Amino acid sequence: MNLKMMGYYISMLLAVEGLFMFPALILCFADGDSHAGFAFLYTMLITTAIVGILQLLCRKRPSKGFYEREGMVCVGLGWTIISILGCLPFCFSGEIPHFIDALFEIVSGFTTTGATILTDVEVISRGLLYWRSFSHWLGGMGVLVFLLAIAPLGGKGGFTIHILRAESTGPNVGKLVPKMRQTASILYLLYILLTVLNLIFLLIGGMPFFEALCIAMGTAGTGGFGTYNDSIASYTPYLQGVCTVFMALFGVNFGCYYLLLLGDFRRFIRNNELRMYIAILLLSTLLISINIRDFYPTFWQAFHHSAFQVSSIMTTTGFATANFDLWPSFSKAILLALMFIGACAGSTGGGFKCGRALILLKSLRRSIHKVLNPQKVEVIQTDDGFLDEDVISKTASYLSAYVIIMLVSFLAISIDGFSFTTSFSAVTACFNNIGPGFDMVGPIGNFSEFSIFSKLVLIFDMLAGRLEIFPMLMIFSRRTWRKY
Amino acid sequence: MNLKMMGYYISMLLAVEGLFMFPALILCFADGDSHAGFAFLYTMLITTAIVGILQLLCRKRPSKGFYEREGMVCVGLGWTIISILGCLPFCFSGEIPHFIDALFEIVSGFTTTGATILTDVEVISRGLLYWRSFSHWLGGMGVLVFLLAIAPLGGKGGFTIHILRAESTGPNVGKLVPKMRQTASILYLLYILLTVLNLIFLLIGGMPFFEALCIAMGTAGTGGFGTYNDSIASYTPYLQGVCTVFMALFGVNFGCYYLLLLGDFRRFIRNNELRMYIAILLLSTLLISINIRDFYPTFWQAFHHSAFQVSSIMTTTGFATANFDLWPSFSKAILLALMFIGACAGSTGGGFKCGRALILLKSLRRSIHKVLNPQKVEVIQTDDGFLDEDVISKTASYLSAYVIIMLVSFLAISIDGFSFTTSFSAVTACFNNIGPGFDMVGPIGNFSEFSIFSKLVLIFDMLAGRLEIFPMLMIFSRRTWRKY
Repeated sequence: MNLKMMGYYISMLLAVEGLFMFPALILCFADGDSHAGFAFLYTMLITTAIVGILQLLCRKRPSKGFYEREGMVCVGLGWTIISILGCLPFCFSGEIPHFIDALFEIVSGFTTTGATILTDVEVISRGLLYWRSFSHWLGGMGVLVFLLAIAPLGGKGGFTIHILRAESTGPNVGKLVPKMRQTASILYLLYILLTVLNLIFLLIGGMPFFEALCIAMGTAGTGGFGTYNDSIASYTPYLQGVCTVFMALFGVNFGCYYLLLLGDFRRFIRNNELRMYIAILLLSTLLISINIRDFYPTFWQAFHHSAFQVSSIMTTTGFATANFDLWPSFSKAILLALMFIGACAGSTGGGFKCGRALILLKSLRRSIHKVLNPQKVEVIQTDDGFLDEDVISKTASYLSAYVIIMLVSFLAISIDGFSFTTSFSAVTACFNNIGPGFDMVGPIGNFSEFSIFSKLVLIFDMLAGRLEIFPMLMIFSRRTWRKY
Repeated sequence: MNLKMMGYYISMLLAVEGLFMFPALILCFADGDSHAGFAFLYTMLITTAIVGILQLLCRKRPSKGFYEREGMVCVGLGWTIISILGCLPFCFSGEIPHFIDALFEIVSGFTTTGATILTDVEVISRGLLYWRSFSHWLGGMGVLVFLLAIAPLGGKGGFTIHILRAESTGPNVGKLVPKMRQTASILYLLYILLTVLNLIFLLIGGMPFFEALCIAMGTAGTGGFGTYNDSIASYTPYLQGVCTVFMALFGVNFGCYYLLLLGDFRRFIRNNELRMYIAILLLSTLLISINIRDFYPTFWQAFHHSAFQVSSIMTTTGFATANFDLWPSFSKAILLALMFIGACAGSTGGGFKCGRALILLKSLRRSIHKVLNPQKVEVIQTDDGFLDEDVISKTASYLSAYVIIMLVSFLAISIDGFSFTTSFSAVTACFNNIGPGFDMVGPIGNFSEFSIFSKLVLIFDMLAGRLEIFPMLMIFSRRTWRKY
């Protein structure tokens, strides 16, 4: 295991995190909130110290030997460490006094979950609210990918692909262009472009700048933290509509936008995952609109709330305009199913991902065909040729790991004794990085009542969900730390 | 597709079913219940007519061309047809007037689910109660396997292995002895032996013969139909204890008993699936005992009910001594997890099966190792050597199909608008062939309130669960019926 290279990358990661605390720090002092300001300052000092020590320790790093395992462990460990440091401002300022609560909140931020332990968001100071929402934005596209986009990281070119693969979402992460750094840059440029566009549309609707910034960052990362207790229910229908559209846009594979940028409209429109994603969005919206028709004065309003909630849940953002926990069972069942399916691979959204579901469906169909015609060797087609058998078997393993983690987490947090729906949907909402679930953790509820043990379980689930399980399993596997 | 051979097998299947109605018919007339008696008589006449027609149509059957696909389709179709005929006595006698209700009840019987639409079991005549419980017994080990055990079915030897494979449970069904017919006979002899033993133990405890017979057949098939509304809560602790032990015994792979019969104690004790099964049984019992300690006057009583319920749910039998729906969330969560895991492969129990879970766990561990050590080729070991890659990929497909069917069924029955827990646990309980779930379908509830559409969905789930999905998917696949 190339520990020194990993230490170096992690130190760079922390440096980026420390730098990104500056705007929050300035905001705090500008607001005259020196308490929160000093909290950021102390955190930044601690971060600087750790970065210094790591850089010193990892001066002589080998220029080779960085493989998939190093990439995964680096991402798993890196995210854990930035979460621990990222939660310190909440602790130091005393606005979230308990460490585990603060950790839950920032992990929920970085993993773009949007689940909160705060019972009253509106009393939190603006600097911390900014930091909370910014963590969505950074976590959405990935901290290490950001690092790749801006800095020449040394090491041979092969080094970085493993990091991009480990941090990006989806079963089959590829480069957009031959050069790794360029791929990361293109992804971030597209990401920034869409975020700014979202911000502009919100400002046009008359939303104050600070709120618009927070909402735009929360939408971009498909996170879900807002600045009001009622999420975004108090905004105008126009603003909610803007959110509906942009949430859906951020759930799309960014590779598709790159195709658009290249003018390759044909391949864009033929993308199977995108088609599946849009079809599910539309069908679900329609079914729920009909099902909740009687809850609203006009069909248009029912459609508005249905479209918003479907877009919010399927992209795993988790904003709410209505307390969907009161909707009929069928609508709730559809939302629950959407929680599992999730957004497209290569987007900032979470969940199992449409792309993976597509691979499993195709491989299931192949299994049936194999029984019918045992001699025939059948390959699975994708948009760009044939699917590697390795990806199929990895996807199958992913489903196993997914089911096992769901089941074990559900058992673990059931010890707290809350209702079946609460426990089940809390795990579902955290593991798929959505945010709100049903019952006690519904759109008007929060996660504050859970025990410390349950919160730790849910923190693990959020990280495992965002990093797609394997990096988190790796850092707990004994073999990882054995010498080779 | 060798349609004539399939027709022949199905006709034999129906003949067996018709013959097995005799005891019920005699019982009805002996009880002076001519209404139910004639219901059986009419059904037997209809069955005979169909058998006759099928035999005539399939006189000239080709002696070759019977593969895995024919085996699966034969089993899928055969079970559907015997269910349709098997429910007629309920309809004709008027004791379950609605056809779909009657079909639900008998499918629940044959698939050893034990879910009922009856609100009052105690008013049903004895002949019908016998038929209901007998369907558990026959469905448990398999109707076609029974046919193989008793009749020389013609066709080359290769024919029958495909039927045994399609009807038996587990990821990797093998023969016990080189000859197919002998394997089937050994399985049924062991099955009869254990059932008789169970019956004797119940009679020793003073249970009336008719009740003991029904309970023994329900236990053997891991079904769960009883003769009282409170399942077996009103019996003495001794009788409940007998059930606890025998339910657990019928959840074991019958291949293990064959090893015992051969005196191969070493391989018996080293069986990994058996070890996992026993470990889960003991651990769950212990955890639930501690969790429900305060519900009962003594620890012993808590342990008694815990052991009974764990044994009942994990083997997917579904008997109840207590209303476990009132137990704390943690206990209910454990029971729910057990519903999914299920019993051993090659037993009469349902669920996902311990053997499959073991394969998935091992293949998941291999995936992690592969990241750590990409060059190393690792095989998965089982009790008898190495696991075929084909079985691993089939198990993965099975999990995909399992999850998809769960999700779609849950969505479909949510239309009825019952609570999340009701809908989710109804699908879980039917698909895993357990019987009772939680909330409305809990141990003191039943399935009568569901709409016809939901009942049809659940009927499909029960059949898909018992036949392990693929045979049921096959009969709905367009390719199956295409000419080759």
